[in-house]
Amino acid sequence: MAITVIGSVAIDNIETPFEKKQNILGGSASFFSVASSYLTDVNVIAVVGSDFDDKYIDILKSKNINVDNIIKKHGKTFHWEGKYDYDMSDPQTLNTELGVFLDFKPSVPHIFKNDTLFLANIDPDIQLEVLEQMLSPKLIALDTMNFWIEKKKDKLLQAIKKSDIFIINESEARLLTGEVSIFSAAKKIFKYGAKIIVLKRGSYGATLFTDGMFFMIPAYPLENVVDPTGAGDSFAGGFLGYIDNTGNLSDENLKKALVFGNIMASFAVESFSIDKLLSIDGDKIKDRFSKFRNMTYFENI
Amino acid sequence: MAITVIGSVAIDNIETPFEKKQNILGGSASFFSVASSYLTDVNVIAVVGSDFDDKYIDILKSKNINVDNIIKKHGKTFHWEGKYDYDMSDPQTLNTELGVFLDFKPSVPHIFKNDTLFLANIDPDIQLEVLEQMLSPKLIALDTMNFWIEKKKDKLLQAIKKSDIFIINESEARLLTGEVSIFSAAKKIFKYGAKIIVLKRGSYGATLFTDGMFFMIPAYPLENVVDPTGAGDSFAGGFLGYIDNTGNLSDENLKKALVFGNIMASFAVESFSIDKLLSIDGDKIKDRFSKFRNMTYFENI
Repeated sequence: MAITVIGSVAIDNIETPFEKKQNILGGSASFFSVASSYLTDVNVIAVVGSDFDDKYIDILKSKNINVDNIIKKHGKTFHWEGKYDYDMSDPQTLNTELGVFLDFKPSVPHIFKNDTLFLANIDPDIQLEVLEQMLSPKLIALDTMNFWIEKKKDKLLQAIKKSDIFIINESEARLLTGEVSIFSAAKKIFKYGAKIIVLKRGSYGATLFTDGMFFMIPAYPLENVVDPTGAGDSFAGGFLGYIDNTGNLSDENLKKALVFGNIMASFAVESFSIDKLLSIDGDKIKDRFSKFRNMTYFENI
Repeated sequence: MAITVIGSVAIDNIETPFEKKQNILGGSASFFSVASSYLTDVNVIAVVGSDFDDKYIDILKSKNINVDNIIKKHGKTFHWEGKYDYDMSDPQTLNTELGVFLDFKPSVPHIFKNDTLFLANIDPDIQLEVLEQMLSPKLIALDTMNFWIEKKKDKLLQAIKKSDIFIINESEARLLTGEVSIFSAAKKIFKYGAKIIVLKRGSYGATLFTDGMFFMIPAYPLENVVDPTGAGDSFAGGFLGYIDNTGNLSDENLKKALVFGNIMASFAVESFSIDKLLSIDGDKIKDRFSKFRNMTYFENI
C-alpha cells in the first residue's frame, strides 16, 4: 500500500490581495505528498536545484514521506510566481522558471513499479515515459493543465488512455473536449479511455463520474481562504490517499474518497504553502469529514 | 394549509446568448405560485394592467392557484426586459416599466391573515404594510433585492425583524451586511431578527442557517440551462411549499425543504417563463429529489 507521485517540487512567490510570500515551498508533488501522507505511504519522484533548502526535505521526511527520489541537480529549482485577485480563483502567472525541471527525466525504482501512481501536471511526454516504466501498477491517476491540452493534446490523450483515473479542472475538461456541459465532457473523456473522472470545480466543489455513477459535493465552506495554491494537488492527495488506504473502488468508497479530497483541499487553502497541511492530524481530518457530512446530509422523502 | 404570496406578475422580454423571447409571463409571484402549487395551496395577491392576457390567469387557475386577488387595473402590466451573458448568471436589465405595479397597494383578505406568507421582492414599505395587515400568520418569509438594500435598508431591516425566514442571494447578503464570509453575514442577519436564513447561491446551490444548524447543497446539475429568470422565486416556492405542506420546522424538514427549493429552481431554468414548471408533476419532482439525493449522499467514515 503506497502511492508514487511524480510531479514538481517548487519554490513559489505568491501574492494575494491580503499578503505576499516569497520563496515558499510549492509544487504539485509537495502538496500531494503531504495531503496523502495522512492516509497512506507516499514516495516522491522529483527534481530540485542546488539552491533548494534541505529543511523542506526534512519537513517532508517528518511526515514519513519517502524523499529518497527527490534528486538534487546542479541549477535552479523550478520557480513559480503567481498573483491572486479578490475572487481568489485562477491566479495570474507573473513568472515561471523551469530550471532543473526542464530536464526532468523521472526514473521509477523497481520497488515502486506496482504501486498506485499519481502523475501530477507535467509534460504528457514525460507522463508517457513513466507509464512505460511501470510493471503492474494497482491504479494510475493522471492530472494535467490547459498548457498541455493546448500544446500536446495527442500525447495527453495517449496518457489518459493508459490511466484509470483522470483528475482535471472543470474548465480544462471543457477545453479538452470542446463541450460545455460537464456530462457531455465526461462522456468524451470516457471515450478517450478514462475509467473514473474527477472534475475539480474550485469553490464549487467537485464531481465524480464512473461508468454508472455520478456524485457531486460542494466545496468545504471556509471563513478564510489564505492561498488557493496547491488545492487541486491536495485534493488529489486526499482522494487517492483514501483509495490506496482502503484498496477499494466501490461506489461508496469513491464517494468518500472525493470527500477526503475536498477536506484536504480545504486545509491546504487555509495557509500559504503546506503549512496548514503540516499542522493537522487524523482526528482533525475525521472531524472535518463528519462536519461536512452533517452539513450536506438530508433524509430521503 | 396555504401560502399567500405577494409579489409581481409581469410580462418579460428575455434574451439569452441562444434565444430571444418577447412578452412572456414573468414576475416573482408567477414563478413562486406555480412552484409551490405542487406542494400546497397558494393564494396570489398581485396587480396586472389592462394589457394583461387572461390566458395566463387561466394557466395559474389550472394549477389550482387562487387568482381571485390578482387585480386588473387600468394601465400597463409590470414589464421587465433582461439579457443574459454566456455565463447565464446575473442578467443585465435593459428596461423596466413598473406600470400599474407603481401603485401596488396589496390588501390581504381576512381569510389569508393566518396563512403562511411569502413577501417576494417588493418595496420594503409595502412589505411592512402587508405585515401590519396580518393577524397570526403561521410563518412569514421575506425576499428582497440589491435595489431595496441600497435605497431602503432601514425599512428592510424592520421587515426582516418581523419575519421568520429571510431568503436572499449570497451577493445581496454581502451587500446588506458588509461581510464577505457567509457565516459572518448570517450572524449579522440573525441579529437583525431573522430566525432562519436561506442564502441562494445560483449555480453554486444554496445554504441554510438556523440558530444551531448549517446546511448546504450544490445546485442540481443540468445539461441545458435555457433561462435562469425566476429560479430564485421557484426556489422559494419549493422551499416554503414543502414547509407549509408538512407544517414542521425540524432541522430534517428544513433540509428537505431546501432540496425541494433546489429541485423547483432546476425545473424553472429549463425553459423560458413558467413553461417547464407547468409540465411537471409530483412523480417528476420526487424522482428528481431522489436522483439529487443519490448524487450527493455518502456514508460516514
